[in-house]
Amino acid sequence: MTKDITAALLIIGNEILSGRTIDQNLNYLAKELSEMGIILSEVRVVRDDESQIINSVNELRANYDYIFTSGGIGATHDDITIASVAKALNLKLVQDSKIAAILKSHYKDKLNDKILKMCMIPEGASLIDNEITAVPGFTVNNIFVLAGIPRIFQSMFTASKKFLKTGEKIHAKTITSYATESSIAHYLEKLQNNYSEIEIGSYPFRHENKPATSIVFRGINKQQIKEAAGEYDRYLKEEEITQFEI
Amino acid sequence: MTKDITAALLIIGNEILSGRTIDQNLNYLAKELSEMGIILSEVRVVRDDESQIINSVNELRANYDYIFTSGGIGATHDDITIASVAKALNLKLVQDSKIAAILKSHYKDKLNDKILKMCMIPEGASLIDNEITAVPGFTVNNIFVLAGIPRIFQSMFTASKKFLKTGEKIHAKTITSYATESSIAHYLEKLQNNYSEIEIGSYPFRHENKPATSIVFRGINKQQIKEAAGEYDRYLKEEEITQFEI
Repeated sequence: MTKDITAALLIIGNEILSGRTIDQNLNYLAKELSEMGIILSEVRVVRDDESQIINSVNELRANYDYIFTSGGIGATHDDITIASVAKALNLKLVQDSKIAAILKSHYKDKLNDKILKMCMIPEGASLIDNEITAVPGFTVNNIFVLAGIPRIFQSMFTASKKFLKTGEKIHAKTITSYATESSIAHYLEKLQNNYSEIEIGSYPFRHENKPATSIVFRGINKQQIKEAAGEYDRYLKEEEITQFEI
Repeated sequence: MTKDITAALLIIGNEILSGRTIDQNLNYLAKELSEMGIILSEVRVVRDDESQIINSVNELRANYDYIFTSGGIGATHDDITIASVAKALNLKLVQDSKIAAILKSHYKDKLNDKILKMCMIPEGASLIDNEITAVPGFTVNNIFVLAGIPRIFQSMFTASKKFLKTGEKIHAKTITSYATESSIAHYLEKLQNNYSEIEIGSYPFRHENKPATSIVFRGINKQQIKEAAGEYDRYLKEEEITQFEI
């Protein structure tokens, strides 16, 4: 088996932590990375606070193959992501001539030094295209600095793909039934021990006012997923527990 | 000014990081804590992985007044939150007689050792009631261990309130207009410098296909919010920039 490729997401913004804004980038990134065989292993949400950003960037970049950051890359005083990332990496901020040209052609006589702040990126960074608002994100070392607005984040993530190694695709199969979690806990533990290359997750909920459970078989070993799910399906049938789709 | 009361949320679960489940607890907790004058300062999402949970619990409990955990407290093999929290705190797991009685009366002859796992909590913990499914959460030291299912999380958080110190209520006022973020960046920086006790956040978006910005004035100093928002309102009127509600 090859080594897992791992990633972390660092969401930067007081508006998420105050409850004003509901983050949408975590779920999008989780699904996209799964498709690419990259394991999203940790997410952090921090305030627009230099020391919080620097500490998180340094911890996450040491622990995972890739870090994606979301938010804080605009023109206003509360946008401190880029300067903080540069500080974390001990890199100088330098003016990028391509971004400067984009800004000059877009803003014309309205150009000011706050706008020009957006063309300062860490030395050695590569640009990440943005099809929505033209101003690019960038990647430096193993860090991808993307916008917080979901459709811009998505455009930039799509453009980031060419920089990413991909792993083996992660497959998943879900079986949902009226099994109660507590009654199948023993059985599931044995099943997990027999199929140790995949993850078997158990998610209880209520359906039509009865307890129900979704069991998710997940991993890169498609054969183990098929066999484990097949065994569980037979178990439910023997126990006369009704399966259903949600 | 009194010292800020701070909190962190630790979301535990592979299903959030795989994209299968969209977290709803962060936004709920953020809003509730704001009401109570408690500043949600950091959120982490980690896998059902003992060392990740232990490291996160230990870092967060050292840095913030309270930690809330969400998820991983059921009966199955992938529910390892409680044992991991106990290990992080170096506390023994002991059987809680109140939870044992709840489980016995609920499960009757279906009781098994997997179910009884749910009455093992760290020594010295206090129970947190759960009005939805009866099995309680608990608090130990400055940690609150709650369920991941949103309506159970909410019920347990409500029951946790009696254990929490409250701070001064955090107020917020939002002014939304067709100002472009880059054109007001200078003005906002000066405004932020003049009203240093509050946070002024700038959130650009598009409205009816035009660039627009919400400016959020946020903090406990209601007078500064009123004055800063009043100044900004006058500025927009002088500049003939249209305000609107979203």
